[in-house]
Amino acid sequence: MASPPLKTRGFFPMQASIFISAKPKPFSPPISVKSQHTPTTLGQPLHSAFPMAAPKWAQKTITLPPQRRGCHLITPKILKEIDQDLSGFKCGLAHFFLQHTSASLTLNENYDSDVRDDTETFLNRIVPEGRSAPWKHTLEGPDDMPAHIKSSMFGCTLTVPITDGRLNMGTWQGIWLCEHRDHATPRKVVVTLNGV
Amino acid sequence: MASPPLKTRGFFPMQASIFISAKPKPFSPPISVKSQHTPTTLGQPLHSAFPMAAPKWAQKTITLPPQRRGCHLITPKILKEIDQDLSGFKCGLAHFFLQHTSASLTLNENYDSDVRDDTETFLNRIVPEGRSAPWKHTLEGPDDMPAHIKSSMFGCTLTVPITDGRLNMGTWQGIWLCEHRDHATPRKVVVTLNGV
Amino acid sequence: MASPPLKTRGFFPMQASIFISAKPKPFSPPISVKSQHTPTTLGQPLHSAFPMAAPKWAQKTITLPPQRRGCHLITPKILKEIDQDLSGFKCGLAHFFLQHTSASLTLNENYDSDVRDDTETFLNRIVPEGRSAPWKHTLEGPDDMPAHIKSSMFGCTLTVPITDGRLNMGTWQGIWLCEHRDHATPRKVVVTLNGV
Repeated sequence: MASPPLKTRGFFPMQASIFISAKPKPFSPPISVKSQHTPTTLGQPLHSAFPMAAPKWAQKTITLPPQRRGCHLITPKILKEIDQDLSGFKCGLAHFFLQHTSASLTLNENYDSDVRDDTETFLNRIVPEGRSAPWKHTLEGPDDMPAHIKSSMFGCTLTVPITDGRLNMGTWQGIWLCEHRDHATPRKVVVTLNGV
Repeated sequence: MASPPLKTRGFFPMQASIFISAKPKPFSPPISVKSQHTPTTLGQPLHSAFPMAAPKWAQKTITLPPQRRGCHLITPKILKEIDQDLSGFKCGLAHFFLQHTSASLTLNENYDSDVRDDTETFLNRIVPEGRSAPWKHTLEGPDDMPAHIKSSMFGCTLTVPITDGRLNMGTWQGIWLCEHRDHATPRKVVVTLNGV
Repeated sequence: MASPPLKTRGFFPMQASIFISAKPKPFSPPISVKSQHTPTTLGQPLHSAFPMAAPKWAQKTITLPPQRRGCHLITPKILKEIDQDLSGFKCGLAHFFLQHTSASLTLNENYDSDVRDDTETFLNRIVPEGRSAPWKHTLEGPDDMPAHIKSSMFGCTLTVPITDGRLNMGTWQGIWLCEHRDHATPRKVVVTLNGV
């Protein structure tokens, strides 16, 4: 199908984009927030106001050591690298970006390792590999094309809320690195923290 | 495979992370933005400048009532909880984070409920359950391990742009909560709003 | 199962949400950041401090021309639209939001087009279409319900870190638009940039 003429492609040409620089309000409103750990104290503010509160950005790249093919809980490794930065945020978002196309990041069970093993079993059942596979892309080995597909199924990026200096995950949630290649290499994760 | 020595693991050691506090520019540039609802008025600014515009953060946890196993459209429930907060943002991002590992959040069709039923049919077809299933993790019931897998397939986190005080979703997009367990429980969603 | 009474649904009522306006700190700390392109210069700051650094937001909608059913590398099309805006950010996040429910956005290999063809092959194998399919939702054609399922499998939203004015993707990562319909239409992507 022919593509429409360039001029009609976008509803919002470049010059129509929002572009805003922050300027402070004369006063900051007080902050009132419940902690997920004290659901019974409704109405009682957890934090006081931050007269000097300013948005902060922190960004670093973490390189994880090679992991065997399968799903791995990496929450402790990640926290070891960012805990000190996290403590500076009362409220914000933590973004995790895996710079690879044959592994994935996902959030799942942090307790029973059988869940990780069963997830690997599922991935290997659903994505054909080897002689039975219909792939054209085989130059990098029989496990490479399945790895690319698994990477898009689970994704390579996560965003987790920050509340009161901590990742605000559920009780049973953990960050998994799923290594889809047989011959593992180090994996880089770009972590970006933003908040107040 | 042996992991490389600690020192060589990360390209960006802790002290190499960006850490920035905001300070205002002496002047804010004017804002010119098209609303997706008025594509015919190109070039005409929708908003005027905000001499006092400052980045804002809002965060709360919404607890959704138990839903039967299947896919459910929750846009109205979500909007009821955040509409008032959203109206304060001209431009920003809304982040939704499900604090669970046996349910998922996804964006899909908001009109025909058959699409939600067919999606549940698909999930049950590709993830084996019961006697035919190869799972080791069965202590929490035959539906638990399949639920974990479905949660990583669809994911538990969404980020939606905010434009002019509203979630800027497509005409047919809605937010779905997919409940993967047979015996539903309340589900918590941490909502984080950030913008100007 | 009956839902609990409204009052007990949410742990965090509206008035309990964080709501923060930014005020500047009296001084900005210096910025020390490694570029992923100069891993050998550890410890040496790449940027100097921004005494006037202020958080910026930019948002626009890009309309992509119709693409045939399949997976398409759209990194060049996207960069052509946002490169100028990106250059204004030393550190931040770029959010891409596809406003559709029968296509998807994913990050995967940017080099061998066979990877994109094989991924389309996989999607068509795993999601039944036509006579063999169990779908109730068929009014919009045999390819429509499979398209909805594929859209939730891969997702319609991506967040990519911005470092030193560029998307900080891995060497082999590219942005894919996966068109799941037979009769393609233009596809709209809302791009939101936020950072300093």
